[in-house]
Amino acid sequence: MDCLEALTGRRGVLRYDPRPVARAEIEAVLAAAIAAPSPANLQPWAFVVVTQPELTRPLARYLLDVQDEKVFQAFLGLRPEETERYLGLYEQFEAAPCFIVVCLEPKAQFALVEHEAVLRDWSLMCLGAATGNLMAAAHARGLGTRWFGGFVLDDGGRMLKEWLGIPVEVEIAAVTPLGYPADATPIRPRVPQTREELAAFRRSDQPALARLLKGKLPVEEVVHFERWNGGSLHVHL
Amino acid sequence: MDCLEALTGRRGVLRYDPRPVARAEIEAVLAAAIAAPSPANLQPWAFVVVTQPELTRPLARYLLDVQDEKVFQAFLGLRPEETERYLGLYEQFEAAPCFIVVCLEPKAQFALVEHEAVLRDWSLMCLGAATGNLMAAAHARGLGTRWFGGFVLDDGGRMLKEWLGIPVEVEIAAVTPLGYPADATPIRPRVPQTREELAAFRRSDQPALARLLKGKLPVEEVVHFERWNGGSLHVHL
Repeated sequence: MDCLEALTGRRGVLRYDPRPVARAEIEAVLAAAIAAPSPANLQPWAFVVVTQPELTRPLARYLLDVQDEKVFQAFLGLRPEETERYLGLYEQFEAAPCFIVVCLEPKAQFALVEHEAVLRDWSLMCLGAATGNLMAAAHARGLGTRWFGGFVLDDGGRMLKEWLGIPVEVEIAAVTPLGYPADATPIRPRVPQTREELAAFRRSDQPALARLLKGKLPVEEVVHFERWNGGSLHVHL
Repeated sequence: MDCLEALTGRRGVLRYDPRPVARAEIEAVLAAAIAAPSPANLQPWAFVVVTQPELTRPLARYLLDVQDEKVFQAFLGLRPEETERYLGLYEQFEAAPCFIVVCLEPKAQFALVEHEAVLRDWSLMCLGAATGNLMAAAHARGLGTRWFGGFVLDDGGRMLKEWLGIPVEVEIAAVTPLGYPADATPIRPRVPQTREELAAFRRSDQPALARLLKGKLPVEEVVHFERWNGGSLHVHL
């Protein structure tokens, strides 16, 4: 698939077909992930690929439970009766045949300890780039993904770490299912949204949640040419 | 260009042709950037696109000065006479006709203040995904990029913020040039590297710097199937 088409056409997939993903396909998306740009060549990533049903199903269940309790209720402030509507969207989520757990595993050691905060920021950006590459590659191969991060609200995803034997010093940064989408629906167009709508994304204004989660700020809202808000140039050489 | 080819074939470009990049090309790479996955739909990005030579040249000079003083010398521990070799690689860097400054501008407000650290982590991953998308799209269009982050070591890149009128509450996360590569060199193959080599990336072991910056851990080093280091399964339901 054409690169720009894959990058702009990817959408999060919630409903999966149970059909397994061939090992070669999994390896292709991981090769794209580790080819991501990595400032200072940190390569701070590690991936755990889970395909055994005795592990994928409890893992999926865990992600949904955390999504309900920690994200929908505690984080976004939805009432329990409101979360049902959103959980309904995940009806075929547990059928996903594969999950990829993206971890932060520092590899390089640097000279100055005071740079540790900077290194962590860069490492998180590397992990985002790797996850984005993985998702674009998956979409190009006809596979769906969806970024989960809410498990960090459950003590850094301690159940996942325990199940998968992930060492204490390694952080889990993101989890995504990997599988063929259950529905061959066409790509939904992005709903344009305003800055005010996005800012209203809080406890007191929940009816628009679904819309908020699908919407997209127009490019003009986030791109500035030459200077922030087009101000005049003031370069002091 | 094919998506997987673009994702895996991208390399950082240091030497640029001064030929300008058409506005439509800049917009295409930005469209790919904002199509990046964004957990909880945070869309925490903003981009400043700089094309005016009176600004691109001091910006390039600033990046190189910081790279020398703050990254090569302070961060990596190179001696000043050693940095010349690396700075020589940037000979045609200042010719780059465009720079894109990737910023962290939070847009959503959430219910719980104690989630702010989580939001910043997620936002950094979003910015990494957007920067990765931008770089893959650029490569697919024949354009070069290179991730710069070292300016944060100079008080968060305060010169950039001042020149570009970036508000105090907005962080600069990354900067990349965007332009046609000066050399039509074929893609360098990745040099395989070991975990030990990468870990040696510190003050006391500099001769291997160039190699370390180009090398790549093999996929087997960073991918675990079913369980970290292939341990046995222990799922407690």
